[in-house]
Amino acid sequence: MTDRQDIPVVGMVGGGQLARMTQQAAIALGTPLRVLSDSAHASAAKVIADVRIGDHRSLDDLSAFAKGADVVTWDHEHVPGEHIRALEEAGVACRPGSEALLYAQDKRVMRERLTELGVPCPEFVVLDDAPLATLEAFGRDTGWPVVLKATRGGYDGKGVWVCASLDEARAVVERAAAEGVGLLAERHVPFRRELAALVARSPYGQGAAYPVVETVQRDGICHEVIAPAPGLDPELAEEAQRLALGIADALGVTGLLAVELFETERGVLVNELAMRPHNSGHWTIEGSHTSQFEQHLRAVLDLPLGDTTPTAPYTVMANVLGGEDPDVYKRYIHVMAHDPAVKVHFYGKEVRPGRKIGHVTALGDDLEETRERARHAADYLRGTI
Amino acid sequence: MTDRQDIPVVGMVGGGQLARMTQQAAIALGTPLRVLSDSAHASAAKVIADVRIGDHRSLDDLSAFAKGADVVTWDHEHVPGEHIRALEEAGVACRPGSEALLYAQDKRVMRERLTELGVPCPEFVVLDDAPLATLEAFGRDTGWPVVLKATRGGYDGKGVWVCASLDEARAVVERAAAEGVGLLAERHVPFRRELAALVARSPYGQGAAYPVVETVQRDGICHEVIAPAPGLDPELAEEAQRLALGIADALGVTGLLAVELFETERGVLVNELAMRPHNSGHWTIEGSHTSQFEQHLRAVLDLPLGDTTPTAPYTVMANVLGGEDPDVYKRYIHVMAHDPAVKVHFYGKEVRPGRKIGHVTALGDDLEETRERARHAADYLRGTI
Repeated sequence: MTDRQDIPVVGMVGGGQLARMTQQAAIALGTPLRVLSDSAHASAAKVIADVRIGDHRSLDDLSAFAKGADVVTWDHEHVPGEHIRALEEAGVACRPGSEALLYAQDKRVMRERLTELGVPCPEFVVLDDAPLATLEAFGRDTGWPVVLKATRGGYDGKGVWVCASLDEARAVVERAAAEGVGLLAERHVPFRRELAALVARSPYGQGAAYPVVETVQRDGICHEVIAPAPGLDPELAEEAQRLALGIADALGVTGLLAVELFETERGVLVNELAMRPHNSGHWTIEGSHTSQFEQHLRAVLDLPLGDTTPTAPYTVMANVLGGEDPDVYKRYIHVMAHDPAVKVHFYGKEVRPGRKIGHVTALGDDLEETRERARHAADYLRGTI
Repeated sequence: MTDRQDIPVVGMVGGGQLARMTQQAAIALGTPLRVLSDSAHASAAKVIADVRIGDHRSLDDLSAFAKGADVVTWDHEHVPGEHIRALEEAGVACRPGSEALLYAQDKRVMRERLTELGVPCPEFVVLDDAPLATLEAFGRDTGWPVVLKATRGGYDGKGVWVCASLDEARAVVERAAAEGVGLLAERHVPFRRELAALVARSPYGQGAAYPVVETVQRDGICHEVIAPAPGLDPELAEEAQRLALGIADALGVTGLLAVELFETERGVLVNELAMRPHNSGHWTIEGSHTSQFEQHLRAVLDLPLGDTTPTAPYTVMANVLGGEDPDVYKRYIHVMAHDPAVKVHFYGKEVRPGRKIGHVTALGDDLEETRERARHAADYLRGTI
């Protein structure tokens, strides 16, 4: 450690809460974390010493940022693929790399590739030429509603439209055409619930899987994560973990891969992929021997992966959304006095109604009690109780 | 959170590993942490966005640092008491304050006050006038060896001399006189082992106690901490916790108080006090529902204190000392592959032989196995195996 070059520097593109929480893990590992942030006031920029201000859509900014970083990784999926390829051609170790990341950036390419690999997915059709005719035929086949998805750029329910009829879909298709947004139609899957399988894969090829969790969404936004997914058939859980490890391997993922799943009567179907720390894995900070943030660092640094064993029978994470009252801090007193064991995580973000501004985590032996503790803390911090 | 003033800023004086690890907790709480560091390359300065470079012995630097901080706290005990009093007079919320901190800065004042309070301590005498005559009489009374301690400025075995005879002590006394260092003589206590009781106290007056731990020292440096102290009589454990809470209350401590104890045949004796996160509490990062760093922040911010319940039957922390080879990072591969559940904490400090550069933590059900895991990781990282 006398020579700084002995310790690799990790560069993370994006200044959001994922980079912020990665900093907690980087502090322990002693590996310097540098972020590229579009603002000095971004969530991660407030807590990291080595912040570079720049635009993740600018190759110049990315290249300057990568200089002196031993590994470059991502807090989000919005870096243009051609820029990542350019970095790679210049010798930058991008993890995940452009080839893998494409499948988390483009839902069409992802669906086509997973289907090729035999991975169970909802039925889908690309709305290319004659989108309305294609859609009409697809809807006749699968029944309505049909889910329309922008092939690129969507997240947290943005870029996803559940359309009850062809008439409803027409408006989406026309707006997408006008804005040059590619569309995909998917069967509206009658799922029991949503699950997520989080795995890590290192360049060496080591894989590690976390317990499969249940994710509870409201309005397309994750509200609650229960680890492990209660009452999940152990065989199905193992199938989901194997599926996620298989996808990580087939796509050459380095770092984390979160696979969002639908649990249906006939098994699991893949909904979405993300190649970074994921909201469905925030529970691991306290709930696992290795947090997803540490695991991501270990994976991109090609270190041996950490133990994913849970630390409690149940861990429940609830997202805290912004409410009407921006002064969240004054609510700490009640939350901490009410439940001295609940863990509060705030992202240092400006409070706006409905925006994810933090999360809380509760650990316990009793599922319903643990859910209630997490929910109470999250609702109170939001200001809805 | 739209208005930055809603969230209190914590200023910590000192850029060492305690401030560094406090940053991990501050990130979660969303409370900005600012440090005053004498160097931009100090352990904490490398991982904190808001670093002020300055001298903790300069009132000007301290005053400038305190401006805009809602609370000021300490990573070490070396800030002159008169400066802290000046800050307090200027309206700065210092936690702990000058009155309490004095007892962690001056061993003579501490011994005299604890004795007044009826707290069991080793027999001691102040070596003021005629130190050698006083010492000779004291040694005749308690027997040799006698422990000499500098009243101020010592840590990690520095400023402590175990003297086998009056002749040995003479050299220490003469050097101390020449350097203007105050001395205290203490009975060399025939202890069974060393313990530590860590508690927190908030300005509101709330107290919280962690399980009492065993600390294993070598050459005056803490090598290993076992939580809870194995086989400790539950009544003695409770007595030690009550003692520490009582001292915190009597001295008006705000923040953490670590009480280092000797376990003897007749109960516990207080050895040292520290009013900050303490090496004997590093195990709490993974081993307790509330880490000592979060607890210190909660206490100095006057928030309700966190749950101190352990997360595992045994947690063992082993310090990593620098060895001959400065390239510690290359040793991660073995340590992590050998034991995917061991937690590595590096402080980003330059490696020098014998210097504390990090620690490792293992959790488990079996005491000896857990100790062995922590020891193996620490020894391997040091390079001694």
